[in-house]
Amino acid sequence: MKAIILVSGGLDSTTVMGIVKSLGYDLYCLTFNYSQRNKIELELIKQNIVNFNPVDHRIINVDLSFLNTSSLVNKDLDVQKYKNKSEITKDIPNTYVPARNTIFLSYALSYAENIGAKDIFIGIHKSDSPNYPDCTKEFALEFENLANIGTSFVNQADDSDKKIKIHAPLIEMTKADIVRRGIELGLNYEKTISCYDPNEIGESCGKCISCLIRLDAFRNNNIDDLIPYVNLN
Amino acid sequence: MKAIILVSGGLDSTTVMGIVKSLGYDLYCLTFNYSQRNKIELELIKQNIVNFNPVDHRIINVDLSFLNTSSLVNKDLDVQKYKNKSEITKDIPNTYVPARNTIFLSYALSYAENIGAKDIFIGIHKSDSPNYPDCTKEFALEFENLANIGTSFVNQADDSDKKIKIHAPLIEMTKADIVRRGIELGLNYEKTISCYDPNEIGESCGKCISCLIRLDAFRNNNIDDLIPYVNLN
Repeated sequence: MKAIILVSGGLDSTTVMGIVKSLGYDLYCLTFNYSQRNKIELELIKQNIVNFNPVDHRIINVDLSFLNTSSLVNKDLDVQKYKNKSEITKDIPNTYVPARNTIFLSYALSYAENIGAKDIFIGIHKSDSPNYPDCTKEFALEFENLANIGTSFVNQADDSDKKIKIHAPLIEMTKADIVRRGIELGLNYEKTISCYDPNEIGESCGKCISCLIRLDAFRNNNIDDLIPYVNLN
Repeated sequence: MKAIILVSGGLDSTTVMGIVKSLGYDLYCLTFNYSQRNKIELELIKQNIVNFNPVDHRIINVDLSFLNTSSLVNKDLDVQKYKNKSEITKDIPNTYVPARNTIFLSYALSYAENIGAKDIFIGIHKSDSPNYPDCTKEFALEFENLANIGTSFVNQADDSDKKIKIHAPLIEMTKADIVRRGIELGLNYEKTISCYDPNEIGESCGKCISCLIRLDAFRNNNIDDLIPYVNLN
């Protein structure tokens, strides 16, 4: 069975790869280069992914140069920083990239149809859902509806075994649950990065929303996060 | 009011631009370079679009190099040709590009959110709906649902005036209806191209599904299609 997986250089999609591998799928992985501020993830994923022996791994260039509202793409904006996790509200932060997961899943859908796969996996989860509208369970379900209507799968949609499925295996998990599941699966997170704003030598900032959620997740599991950080006072 | 319009070099999206202009919108147009066989449309659209005076026109590169099932992208495949329009069945032809409109609308959605627009226009129509699953009314409606759930519009979705809308103004029209509407609007189609497989000097083949539907539409309106064709015997 073929599984398409959206993989960044982060720990969520690394955990998804571990889960999908444990289910016996063949892995077809897609990574997106959208000129993100954290471009080091594109190097780390190449090192990390060899542990999962995918059949195919592609880095797809996505042109989002028109975006100026997102600090992940527009380098003139500062990434929002917080003193600690309790400062994070439910607002959409400026690190939100409009329609990013819709774009990524659209490519995955095209790729799936091309190779005859019907299982697409995405690492969205409960700790991101409150802040990012494209990281919710409702979003994944709605994309699945669209996928079955807007592709050649439409001719098979009456048979649920032949429908295309958007799997979000982490959607009921917090970041701490994800780390716990990864440890159970024997995964190593040392070649992952979650920071939105790492410095030039690849150290994570420790103060962006993504760092704070990651650090809290490791702390909750009483284990050390062994990637390099700056400014952790 | 800002309107985002997906524009190729074809007559459908040209008609959409005419309609949207007549409604008083400011035009923000997106064209996609996906290494399509018909790359001449990317030159023609630049000549054609000046008639509509858009606020912005961007050509976005879309990497579909992984696709090998579509003859519009994989040059090793021959574009399906027909003796005449009656030979066209309701099957999905090999010119189908998996999830193409999902990808294009995803970019439009991101762009819309970035500039604060809530009206996206796409030129899908009744003559394409039977052959292409991403050219149906159901597809457009489903994408609209997704757009309102997976973006910052989700916080406003209770107020229908604040929802994002996917407009498909041609969806109830055949190609002949579209040409008729274009003539009413005073549009000139001489700088458009519909052919999937034009030759090196830009002449349309006259035998692909898109040429046959276009030629039939002009014939139905008793007017000449003044673009260059080969092989019209």
